[in-house]
Amino acid sequence: MKIRDLIITPIAFRDPPLLNSTGVHEPLALRCVLELVTDDGTTGLGESPGDKEHLERLAVAREAVLGMDVFATTAIGQAVDAALGGPGGPVPTTARAGVFSAIEVACLDAQGKITGRPVCDLLGGAVRDAVPYSAYLFYKWAEHPAQDGRGPIPDEWGEALDPEGIVAQARRMVDLYGFRSLKLKGGVFPPDEEIAAIRALAEAFPGLPLRIDPNYAWTPETSRYVARELDGVLEYLEDPTPGFDGLASVAATATMPLATNMCVVSFETVRPAVERGSVQVILSDHHYWGGLRRTRELGAVCEAFGLGMSMHSNSHLGISLAAMTHVAAATPNLTYACDTHYPWNREDDVVVPGALRFTGGSVPVPDGPGLGVELDREALAERHRTYLESGRERRDDTGYRRRLDPSYDPAIPRW
Amino acid sequence: MKIRDLIITPIAFRDPPLLNSTGVHEPLALRCVLELVTDDGTTGLGESPGDKEHLERLAVAREAVLGMDVFATTAIGQAVDAALGGPGGPVPTTARAGVFSAIEVACLDAQGKITGRPVCDLLGGAVRDAVPYSAYLFYKWAEHPAQDGRGPIPDEWGEALDPEGIVAQARRMVDLYGFRSLKLKGGVFPPDEEIAAIRALAEAFPGLPLRIDPNYAWTPETSRYVARELDGVLEYLEDPTPGFDGLASVAATATMPLATNMCVVSFETVRPAVERGSVQVILSDHHYWGGLRRTRELGAVCEAFGLGMSMHSNSHLGISLAAMTHVAAATPNLTYACDTHYPWNREDDVVVPGALRFTGGSVPVPDGPGLGVELDREALAERHRTYLESGRERRDDTGYRRRLDPSYDPAIPRW
Ligand SMILES: [Mg+2]
Ligand SMILES: [Mg+2]
Repeated sequence: MKIRDLIITPIAFRDPPLLNSTGVHEPLALRCVLELVTDDGTTGLGESPGDKEHLERLAVAREAVLGMDVFATTAIGQAVDAALGGPGGPVPTTARAGVFSAIEVACLDAQGKITGRPVCDLLGGAVRDAVPYSAYLFYKWAEHPAQDGRGPIPDEWGEALDPEGIVAQARRMVDLYGFRSLKLKGGVFPPDEEIAAIRALAEAFPGLPLRIDPNYAWTPETSRYVARELDGVLEYLEDPTPGFDGLASVAATATMPLATNMCVVSFETVRPAVERGSVQVILSDHHYWGGLRRTRELGAVCEAFGLGMSMHSNSHLGISLAAMTHVAAATPNLTYACDTHYPWNREDDVVVPGALRFTGGSVPVPDGPGLGVELDREALAERHRTYLESGRERRDDTGYRRRLDPSYDPAIPRW
Repeated sequence: MKIRDLIITPIAFRDPPLLNSTGVHEPLALRCVLELVTDDGTTGLGESPGDKEHLERLAVAREAVLGMDVFATTAIGQAVDAALGGPGGPVPTTARAGVFSAIEVACLDAQGKITGRPVCDLLGGAVRDAVPYSAYLFYKWAEHPAQDGRGPIPDEWGEALDPEGIVAQARRMVDLYGFRSLKLKGGVFPPDEEIAAIRALAEAFPGLPLRIDPNYAWTPETSRYVARELDGVLEYLEDPTPGFDGLASVAATATMPLATNMCVVSFETVRPAVERGSVQVILSDHHYWGGLRRTRELGAVCEAFGLGMSMHSNSHLGISLAAMTHVAAATPNLTYACDTHYPWNREDDVVVPGALRFTGGSVPVPDGPGLGVELDREALAERHRTYLESGRERRDDTGYRRRLDPSYDPAIPRW
């Protein structure tokens, strides 16, 4: 079964003003939808980041994979890698893996449709019927400020700039989706304010596992201070400070596990982190670990290294949520609840509603063939028009924030 | 698609008197054939060791998996593990993995037939059309001596007890099958004689990679001596001496990689070996690493640890050769030629001839659905009769040798 076409459609969708250690989410998030067509007319869907460089690389990869067998995903990965210059070439490992990932997911969706099986069955089958996700809490403004001739853009979530705002946001998340663990994107306010927010969450939601992720915003010393202050409160502490050695110096005294999706991002970065004792939990992400099979393999690597396994997320829509759910369902030692931005962006989804839902904070594994989701072509066309009209080329949280506040200094570690 | 039945048939087939560090192969090797039947009548084949304990565990596992979805192999693995008492229970990790492996291969064969795809396609597809194997050379007697009222059992291969005999055996292997690498099972004669045999092979087959595997027969000091003597001659040195630390003390000075299928036998034993620098190459074997998907995952683990990957073999027939070929074809970093005993046992195979052949030392990946091999029911029935008539319960190379020579001392390391 050969790949006859691969249609690459960049899209843009609304994103609230979510704050992080390097700036703030822009009014539009960029993404890209892949439609892979086999010579029997089967279509497979993929979703990936939408920045210009990635789209250009996808176009190069497209030429390399047309005509290849849709079941030969490992060989397709090698072809993509070679087309992008391979190791030592101009494209970093995670970027090459990211291009392949989008194509692999589309191949697996097509394989599932061809064989009549859900994608998780192509990965060894589900070991859980539903995948637990974590509420992804953000400090946020009430609205995107008026800019470039357009008015302000408010959203249903309102402002969250202090512990009370975060607790209210969490309450809404939990009420709407049933989440049973909470993650706060930190690195936005001085650490004592974020410690207070975590403590407020612990008080408001007793028993729910809590995480904070300041994205390298703290020095090792500050990180050790936060770890001491939140002893017994955090499930894990994610990427408090930059680098293998910085994290190791925090892990040496922290009572909770350290987690990362910034320091360990590829198979060759696992061993250095383990040897230094930098982290105890790795956040997988099929978008840059090289697809669903590689994520399953990362599970085995975590097992062999004695590491815990969780899952990272960027702003995404339903094709990615379906893929994340299938691979997480098939990976036994992915026992931490997964991250997802989906509640922030789901209203602009490009898949037909119904296949994806949260119940008790978990997404039941879609049971249709392939990923189990169907493209809403009207929504896709509209998101694509939005992309074209936006003129946007890449994500730039820092640039957006600096346009609004020229004095903003994105340098990290900040505290 | 549910598992309706799992038929377990122990078999015995002829085996030449192949010598190793713990004795000699008996006249009959024991094995077991699995026929898994799904509720739509599809049959999947598996093959595994045939010793009594393993058969008893398979019978326990059978009860646990009947009624399960044939695509849910990871969940089946968990069910088998639990039925056998799990980690910390009475059944060792490799034995539990070994029971699951036979069932997993049968599930994948059935999945392939149901979906119309070769097994390698269920593992990410082949990255090579044919899998290179190594000639597996053995010191051997000309015949099984007369014993227990039966006459001697000669074989077509004749005697090989010195360098000339080994070179003649290698010549015949290479002429018949086209092998492009050679492995000598050592640990049988004093190391200087085996060094002489390797040197004779190097001279007779210039350019062919050479390996020797004495199965822990040497002390660390002797191992270092052999490594020095064979500097520049060996592709790798396999299990020269027992244990993580023993191997590490050899690896510290050896110029060639050390390989193992004895010291690293499960996911939790990889890290201790790497931390000590014990070995540089791991021999996979789906029969005790937990099946084909786990072998593929072991590839990722080897990659993450910077280890090379090869493949181990025990006496086996065509179902296992097909499974080995599919998984090796699908595993990119399995770049060393695989071991196989198949040339020693193939005449008693239980699969219909034609699907498996050697060309230039490699086995082309069978391209039919599933494993691509078909059961020869007449041959199976005959091998099963042989098993029943033999009264044999388990492999015992040492006991057999001691019955022939009561003074034989199997203690290792021997030199
Ligand atoms: Mg993170
Ligand atoms: Mg060996």
